[in-house]
Amino acid sequence: MNAGEEHLLSGIRVLDFTRALAGPTCTRMFAELGAEVIKIEAAPLGDLTRKISKLRADRSFYHIQHNLNKKSVCINLRDPRGMALVGELIPKCDVVVENFRPGVMADMGLDYDSLKQMKSDIILCSISALGQEGPLAKKPGYDYIAQAYSGVTSMIGHPDESPCIPLVGIGDVSTGVHGAFGIAAALLHRARTGRGQHLDISLLDCYYHNHEVNVHQHSGSGGKIMPTRGGRHVSYLCPAGVYRANGGDIMLMAFMHHWPDLCAAMDKNELLEKEGWLTDAERVARQDEVIEFIEKWLKTFPDVASAIKKLEEYDVPCAPVLTVAETIDHPHLVERGTVRSVVDPIAGEFKIPGMPIKTSEYEANQDYTAPCLGEHNADILSSLLSKTPEEIVEMVEAGILQSGAT
Amino acid sequence: MNAGEEHLLSGIRVLDFTRALAGPTCTRMFAELGAEVIKIEAAPLGDLTRKISKLRADRSFYHIQHNLNKKSVCINLRDPRGMALVGELIPKCDVVVENFRPGVMADMGLDYDSLKQMKSDIILCSISALGQEGPLAKKPGYDYIAQAYSGVTSMIGHPDESPCIPLVGIGDVSTGVHGAFGIAAALLHRARTGRGQHLDISLLDCYYHNHEVNVHQHSGSGGKIMPTRGGRHVSYLCPAGVYRANGGDIMLMAFMHHWPDLCAAMDKNELLEKEGWLTDAERVARQDEVIEFIEKWLKTFPDVASAIKKLEEYDVPCAPVLTVAETIDHPHLVERGTVRSVVDPIAGEFKIPGMPIKTSEYEANQDYTAPCLGEHNADILSSLLSKTPEEIVEMVEAGILQSGAT
Repeated sequence: MNAGEEHLLSGIRVLDFTRALAGPTCTRMFAELGAEVIKIEAAPLGDLTRKISKLRADRSFYHIQHNLNKKSVCINLRDPRGMALVGELIPKCDVVVENFRPGVMADMGLDYDSLKQMKSDIILCSISALGQEGPLAKKPGYDYIAQAYSGVTSMIGHPDESPCIPLVGIGDVSTGVHGAFGIAAALLHRARTGRGQHLDISLLDCYYHNHEVNVHQHSGSGGKIMPTRGGRHVSYLCPAGVYRANGGDIMLMAFMHHWPDLCAAMDKNELLEKEGWLTDAERVARQDEVIEFIEKWLKTFPDVASAIKKLEEYDVPCAPVLTVAETIDHPHLVERGTVRSVVDPIAGEFKIPGMPIKTSEYEANQDYTAPCLGEHNADILSSLLSKTPEEIVEMVEAGILQSGAT
Repeated sequence: MNAGEEHLLSGIRVLDFTRALAGPTCTRMFAELGAEVIKIEAAPLGDLTRKISKLRADRSFYHIQHNLNKKSVCINLRDPRGMALVGELIPKCDVVVENFRPGVMADMGLDYDSLKQMKSDIILCSISALGQEGPLAKKPGYDYIAQAYSGVTSMIGHPDESPCIPLVGIGDVSTGVHGAFGIAAALLHRARTGRGQHLDISLLDCYYHNHEVNVHQHSGSGGKIMPTRGGRHVSYLCPAGVYRANGGDIMLMAFMHHWPDLCAAMDKNELLEKEGWLTDAERVARQDEVIEFIEKWLKTFPDVASAIKKLEEYDVPCAPVLTVAETIDHPHLVERGTVRSVVDPIAGEFKIPGMPIKTSEYEANQDYTAPCLGEHNADILSSLLSKTPEEIVEMVEAGILQSGAT
């Protein structure tokens, strides 16, 4: 149990072998909802993200953000005595999560069949770039590798140029959330049937999941529709996309039934009868003209805010395209806890994204921080495995357990 | 119970008021994992996505993809007798999901407090663009509106131009999955405590969740780091991004410990000692040179496939940037079920993304299809509410229940 704290997932214990981003996102969501997450870090260095984004006091802000409320146990996994500790921990846990390259868990003797021998109803969630099986499974993988294979990269950028990549962890984060949902569903199933489960969650499958129209449009049209990127604008609705205003950009979604509202906002109701501009299909066909017209109108405002104000008066769906810096103090994001502060005991205070699962009964953004390397070695080994202080000291001296100052 | 079918979430019943994409993604994931999802569609037309992406036989491929394995009950919600039916259905359900504009559920008498009166432990999941509360909550919202407010749009495109938008439903799909995880967590909590929950899941919060480094880098550097888009390349590692080859593009992730492998693949081990090219930071500083060098080498191959083959020989993380059309028959995606066929009884066979939650015990891609409008009116009203055939006919004749041929 999670030391007196109570939240949606209190009482669930997760053994966490994940590193970097997709796996840690999955287990962090469990930890933030109250589960006890024991992060097993490989000695001597632990999760390599401890070495990046060090902005203050030798603490990694990246590591803190993605490991809130976890416990760290740092073990030499190349020592059989270290692996024996892992073997003792598994029967105490409900869930194991890992994101090694496929095959590594088996090499460690921790494949699903072996885990089942240690705990018959264990739930194992394996997270990878391209999946546990299939001809590409063993390729080295990163977020963007899966993104490229999924066809998502091909849908980003200008149509007459090579594509762009979003500088945001879209695939890793989404995959972590898919994994968290799969585990929660497997826990509900276990409660009903007494059986465990092995989940195979990949960035590729999760990226592919995003194609809300592209796959069926190509396939369903017998190959006539060839989905591709469209720059700043949606390819089948208009106006719908990024419009330039004075001092910045505006996202404008004034298609279908919103078009009359935009025309009213522009005080150009005559456009509702303008030949060739009547439907979205017609406006898409002469998109350049429509865009030029609207951008010319937007340029009559001194800045983005005044243009947005006018559009809002007419209930036209619109938004300023905010920079990350502008999001951090935005009143709406602050009030919702979309952005939150963490106060790290070593690195101090800074901002990170809030927990997106908001519930009526519990505060979403708790005062969590992230563990130093091996911070919970003694805690976990004594409380779960009944090791004595002498045994723990012995394991530290033998290099089986390690810890670090950050 | 879901007519004899067995999967992870069998036995759970969801009342589904969602339309379009984020909400339907959430409830579809429940339906695909075996829950009974009863989609309440407002007469006369139902979910408006039934009108779009009609590629064959007047059936919407969009609607089919996002409503697999759901049951459709089409009710006139402006008739008090229709709302009375809804009131009778709620106590029979575990979960209610909706994605109306905030305030609409309250106007219908279906806010969380009212639902609790009907069923004390109900779990309500409210999905919206900008959240249930906060100064922007009531703005009309779409995926891209939330994306613009989240700062994600600002991270996509070339740094010296206005940003691009991805033509993929990244925000809606991810938000649906966040909602599904929140509901599953709330069901686990209900099993332990007997209490229900109201979840507030927004596209804005879920989009913001994707900032794996941007928010803490800006905030933690005291505003010195100003995250922005970087075109085709990662801004803090090199090589990492989209490289042009003959006949297409290649995603190449040859940073840090992968750089020596790329140098070996290029047969240019002398680069390992080239001044100014030694670290990622140095290579980022002269990115243009590095990119030009690598692209020149890639152009020595006749096509993308032969360049990929060479890179794979040296275990360099790489991928062809596939078009959506190229993904559909790709052996890896086919073997994994990343892409799958649905066979609709009216529209026939076509391809859509596979179910990304893959488990050891159940087939991920079941032979599901989507309901015609009101297809399950009689089924649900007789089995759950014990209405007689006469009562049902009467409601059809009074226009309280509707149905359609597609």
